[in-house]
Amino acid sequence: MINKVTMVSINEPALSQEKLGYDEAVRLTESEIKRLLKSAPPIIRPQTSHLAQAAGKGIRARALLACAMDDDHRVIRNAVNAAVAVELLHLATLVHDDIIDDADIRRGITALHVKFGSKLAVLCGDYLMCLALDMASMMKVTEIDREKVGNVLPSYFKEICLGEIGELSHTGNLDLTEKEYFEIISGKTAALFQATFHAGYLLADEPLEFKDIYIEIGNLIGIIFQLSDDCLDFVSSRKTVKKPVLIDCSRGVMTLPLIYALKNDQTLRKKLEQGIAGQELKDAVIAAGGIEYTQAKIEEYRSRTKQLIAMLRSETKRNMLEQLLDKASAL
Amino acid sequence: MINKVTMVSINEPALSQEKLGYDEAVRLTESEIKRLLKSAPPIIRPQTSHLAQAAGKGIRARALLACAMDDDHRVIRNAVNAAVAVELLHLATLVHDDIIDDADIRRGITALHVKFGSKLAVLCGDYLMCLALDMASMMKVTEIDREKVGNVLPSYFKEICLGEIGELSHTGNLDLTEKEYFEIISGKTAALFQATFHAGYLLADEPLEFKDIYIEIGNLIGIIFQLSDDCLDFVSSRKTVKKPVLIDCSRGVMTLPLIYALKNDQTLRKKLEQGIAGQELKDAVIAAGGIEYTQAKIEEYRSRTKQLIAMLRSETKRNMLEQLLDKASAL
Repeated sequence: MINKVTMVSINEPALSQEKLGYDEAVRLTESEIKRLLKSAPPIIRPQTSHLAQAAGKGIRARALLACAMDDDHRVIRNAVNAAVAVELLHLATLVHDDIIDDADIRRGITALHVKFGSKLAVLCGDYLMCLALDMASMMKVTEIDREKVGNVLPSYFKEICLGEIGELSHTGNLDLTEKEYFEIISGKTAALFQATFHAGYLLADEPLEFKDIYIEIGNLIGIIFQLSDDCLDFVSSRKTVKKPVLIDCSRGVMTLPLIYALKNDQTLRKKLEQGIAGQELKDAVIAAGGIEYTQAKIEEYRSRTKQLIAMLRSETKRNMLEQLLDKASAL
Repeated sequence: MINKVTMVSINEPALSQEKLGYDEAVRLTESEIKRLLKSAPPIIRPQTSHLAQAAGKGIRARALLACAMDDDHRVIRNAVNAAVAVELLHLATLVHDDIIDDADIRRGITALHVKFGSKLAVLCGDYLMCLALDMASMMKVTEIDREKVGNVLPSYFKEICLGEIGELSHTGNLDLTEKEYFEIISGKTAALFQATFHAGYLLADEPLEFKDIYIEIGNLIGIIFQLSDDCLDFVSSRKTVKKPVLIDCSRGVMTLPLIYALKNDQTLRKKLEQGIAGQELKDAVIAAGGIEYTQAKIEEYRSRTKQLIAMLRSETKRNMLEQLLDKASAL
């Protein structure tokens, strides 16, 4: 009888109550992600191996593990599974994000999906998403009465998807307001950080009154992360090695520096509609104060985040989240 | 504070123990699927509305609900959620299945994803998948010690994804053996039927010794369903209204009639490699006995399925599953 649904077996009951130090948990998360990516089906392995290299600093996993620490700065084994799940979901969204439509092909953008075929990229993203949700659903959190991490993550994943859809529906919309922009990034980037912090809060078994604080810190760090990424579309920095300049702009993705510049430089809209060279666009956005304005917004969100972090109980945790905040906002 | 993760609220605790008759549950499932598809974000609504029309007979939902019946032929409210989840996942795979790669665009195939853009189709499929998994994860099955439906479905979903990847990796592989073919369809089509029957078994609260019987019936009906669909690629029938003839073949998807014909007509391979007209291919596959052979396989699987169905306890359930079996194998 065919009844073999293979389970990723890193979640043995014997291990689930074992506690780990933060550094050990980070290492375990990284090696587990690499192992899963490298053991993907052969046909998508070129793509997942590429992701294994690009997986980078894993800010979401680190945030989750930092939040999940108990009073002794240790995390339960399940926290590693949750950290793996959020990073895999992040990678899934990256892969699907990269899938271009016909218009992009015409514009001559070459990306992974072109090399491997759109269909393969779709399936690769699907696989990572299923892997993430499977992993999330397998987690056994001992609390009976509280929300379970495995039940919390899928609804955030739906939110993220809605956020992506929202972004797509505003592609090339030069009339996008700042308010609409913030709604979009709340769904898209911030929801995954919210999920991360929400899961961390549950895994740390923190008192209920801290729930909203954790989730809001996640939301704010997510927004800061996105604003910082927006700036990268226009300015060179050590981060830009990983991200080609003006990639968002060329895809019609609206970013805050551009929205601000459009509002303050009345000539820019016409130039964009008629076609504008990359360097000229960069100069115009910078001259209109788009980057400065976005940086000021980042600062504003940073100080709100710091206030919330200061409300957390553990000093170690507060320090670690402050460091994460610095990472999220660093250019 | 932004902390609104919207939940689909059809799963109120007050309702979860309420029991429904089969017909009522089918109606509720259908209306719930239509409601969800119609309330999708505006930008993907043209596509989801299209799906709402095409959703058709919902064989997976009906199978789940039939399996989920208790001794009084009634199902718990959660069974409707599970039925909605499997149908939504099926629709998600349909949408992603339809995404074509550059090669297809060159071949001039026009499909939904071309009209709406690949990216939109990717996000639409992602949304449906997340909706399905969210719904699955929200189900509260009362048993503590047994597997929960919400935990069972995601691992099947991963299997399905692996099946799709397996199929893609054998696209255009004229050397595909019958054995390899059956492995692929076990993953792709049969895994979702297995998930359906497994979930139904859990929801019916059947004794543990029936678990493997349910899952194997699901597996066999899934295989039969796929073999029947394979035949449709070559012969006209009342079903073909929904499926253009030779669509699998033109995409390089290997089907059993073709595999058999390639083995028995030594000239066919060369013709295929050099390009062959549709009618000529159809005639060749039929002349080589590809359809007859596949029909004989269907009969073989049908009788195995009937034996297993006969082992179930309730006569009503046996009759309903026999009818489903007929539907799955009907041309």
